[in-house]
Amino acid sequence: MAFSFELIKTDPIGARRGKLTTPHGVVETPVFMPVGTQATVKAMTPEELTSIGVKIILSNTYHLYLRPGHEVIRKLGGLHSFMNWNGPILTDSGGFQVYSLAPLRKISEEGVTFASHLDGTRHFLSPEKAMEVQESLGADIIMPLDDCTPYPCERGLAKESMELTIGWELRSKAARKQSNQALFGIVQGGMYADLRKECAGRLVETGFDGYAIGGVSVGEEKPLMYETVESTTPHLPEDKPRYLMGVGTPEDMVFSVEKGIDMFDCVLPTRSARNGTLFTSDGKLVIKNRIYAGDPSPVDASCGCYTCANYSRAYLRHLYMSNEILAARLNTLHNLHYYMTLMRGMRDAIEAGSFEGFKKGFLLRFGKNTEQ
Amino acid sequence: MAFSFELIKTDPIGARRGKLTTPHGVVETPVFMPVGTQATVKAMTPEELTSIGVKIILSNTYHLYLRPGHEVIRKLGGLHSFMNWNGPILTDSGGFQVYSLAPLRKISEEGVTFASHLDGTRHFLSPEKAMEVQESLGADIIMPLDDCTPYPCERGLAKESMELTIGWELRSKAARKQSNQALFGIVQGGMYADLRKECAGRLVETGFDGYAIGGVSVGEEKPLMYETVESTTPHLPEDKPRYLMGVGTPEDMVFSVEKGIDMFDCVLPTRSARNGTLFTSDGKLVIKNRIYAGDPSPVDASCGCYTCANYSRAYLRHLYMSNEILAARLNTLHNLHYYMTLMRGMRDAIEAGSFEGFKKGFLLRFGKNTEQ
Repeated sequence: MAFSFELIKTDPIGARRGKLTTPHGVVETPVFMPVGTQATVKAMTPEELTSIGVKIILSNTYHLYLRPGHEVIRKLGGLHSFMNWNGPILTDSGGFQVYSLAPLRKISEEGVTFASHLDGTRHFLSPEKAMEVQESLGADIIMPLDDCTPYPCERGLAKESMELTIGWELRSKAARKQSNQALFGIVQGGMYADLRKECAGRLVETGFDGYAIGGVSVGEEKPLMYETVESTTPHLPEDKPRYLMGVGTPEDMVFSVEKGIDMFDCVLPTRSARNGTLFTSDGKLVIKNRIYAGDPSPVDASCGCYTCANYSRAYLRHLYMSNEILAARLNTLHNLHYYMTLMRGMRDAIEAGSFEGFKKGFLLRFGKNTEQ
Repeated sequence: MAFSFELIKTDPIGARRGKLTTPHGVVETPVFMPVGTQATVKAMTPEELTSIGVKIILSNTYHLYLRPGHEVIRKLGGLHSFMNWNGPILTDSGGFQVYSLAPLRKISEEGVTFASHLDGTRHFLSPEKAMEVQESLGADIIMPLDDCTPYPCERGLAKESMELTIGWELRSKAARKQSNQALFGIVQGGMYADLRKECAGRLVETGFDGYAIGGVSVGEEKPLMYETVESTTPHLPEDKPRYLMGVGTPEDMVFSVEKGIDMFDCVLPTRSARNGTLFTSDGKLVIKNRIYAGDPSPVDASCGCYTCANYSRAYLRHLYMSNEILAARLNTLHNLHYYMTLMRGMRDAIEAGSFEGFKKGFLLRFGKNTEQ
């Protein structure tokens, strides 16, 4: 199976219903990809992910390159085999993690040198190296090294950063050796609509298997993020998947699907779970709150997940207060189930041509307790 | 279902094959009870425990009394319902945890005052209070408050401590309000065979539903522990279950089953798992060892657990080095599976009248790598 994307339907207001085909299976879009930074979606087994409808996960090249090393993983048969996940995987290029985690960064035309956040050792990542590492990992979808434009960023610097990224992306495409991995292009350009348009245009001219919007969710206000998405998607081809990197909250995903985004990834559901914040159809619930100490009800009475079927808020609070591993497990399973259910709801609504109504209903309910 | 014990068979060398019947199900003995200190066997779901053959678990009264509080659990329907475990549960009395965890202990005839290890608040635990707390929790088997004799301990003090314990146990029996919970007696007496004999005799005279040997595995040498067990079991009735508290290693259990012990509990398999030490049929394996970095083989090729069926030593080492929650999960599942398999092996051997051969084979293989 080679990589392909089929656009099944577009809702009147712009939301898209599609289907990704990859060497490891088919993925219905819009889709959320749980993050498995270190070759594991934290606290979950692959079977648990599958049981709640997860079809594709993301893993981080930066982390796996540093530990255990991409060569170790290659020799063990690649990332799928290493982590016992037989579904599709997307790996990022490591660019964003170098930007956000690694000290002593030095960026040049050639690539980026940095110190490992684990042991301070010095490393050099070039577009070509990022491709080599990702080919060793063997993910279904791989990403070119990009330069992440900070926010705020003056226009001249944003353009410079964009030019650097475009150059790196062309080199990435040229360096690619394996045709069974889809390579996406990443649109940068800061919060400048004209730069986003220019970047998208030049990448589309080169031709990639899909297009990602990078450099958002880096501290800007929500409206500005939505504007940036809105100013980019019209310049991307209809027949290729669109991936909004590192996004986001349930609201972010609903707004962005409306703008024509097909793919998302974010640590929010898994990280929030470990911090005791649970997503429910009525908004967020902070499980350590004392009011739940004796509460016999489930996190969300309308939720069908294992956690809600078997455990009370009182028990989940107890596990959280006691720093028990089961707290992370049950909370993560619930939050990912929430995300999967939300995406399924959006897919169904788009198919039914009723995405606008779905969005209104979602905002009405989810907004209720978000300040809790 | 009331509580009962049936002795099915005694092996020529003394090992016993039995069956416990409790309000929450039947337990074949000899049995190992995984420890669920804070109303969860660390890193496991109840379904996972069931999947590897766990029939009965232990939970700690001291911890649950302090957090979330026994009244909270009682109002939520008891410990079984609270933690979603519908099999038998044994709760200890809290005595050992007060002895090992709580600062500012003061022991009197009346009971023991102590400070919480969580927040320093002062508490008073009497035999009557320990019964009340355990009745709120609702376990199938409960234990009387005992005074844990330290090691080493001069004979006079060991006798004093024993007398205190016996007095507390008689008060515990008198204070018991619920007949559907089995109450065990705990034999103390330090490492003095005559005291053990006296204590056992006086408890048996009073009559309990089962008998535990307490105050072992408190720092004494292994041979002394085995001697203490050996000097106690002959004074316990054949038709009641015998529980060796807080023991032990695989070797400890094999030696103690030989001496006629039916029940065990210990944090070793679960705690070792979280610390990266794995039990295999060839001995212990320390997963962080660099030699496993690229090792594609399972922890134990002869093991049928989920971990060994799906993951390499290299992956488990990576998870452990990366401090991933999945490391604790996969390692715990494996170690508990090992313990369950060992107990099943002993039960089968006793039934077949071949326990001595089983023991020899076990020691030959398990001893191989224990120094690794």
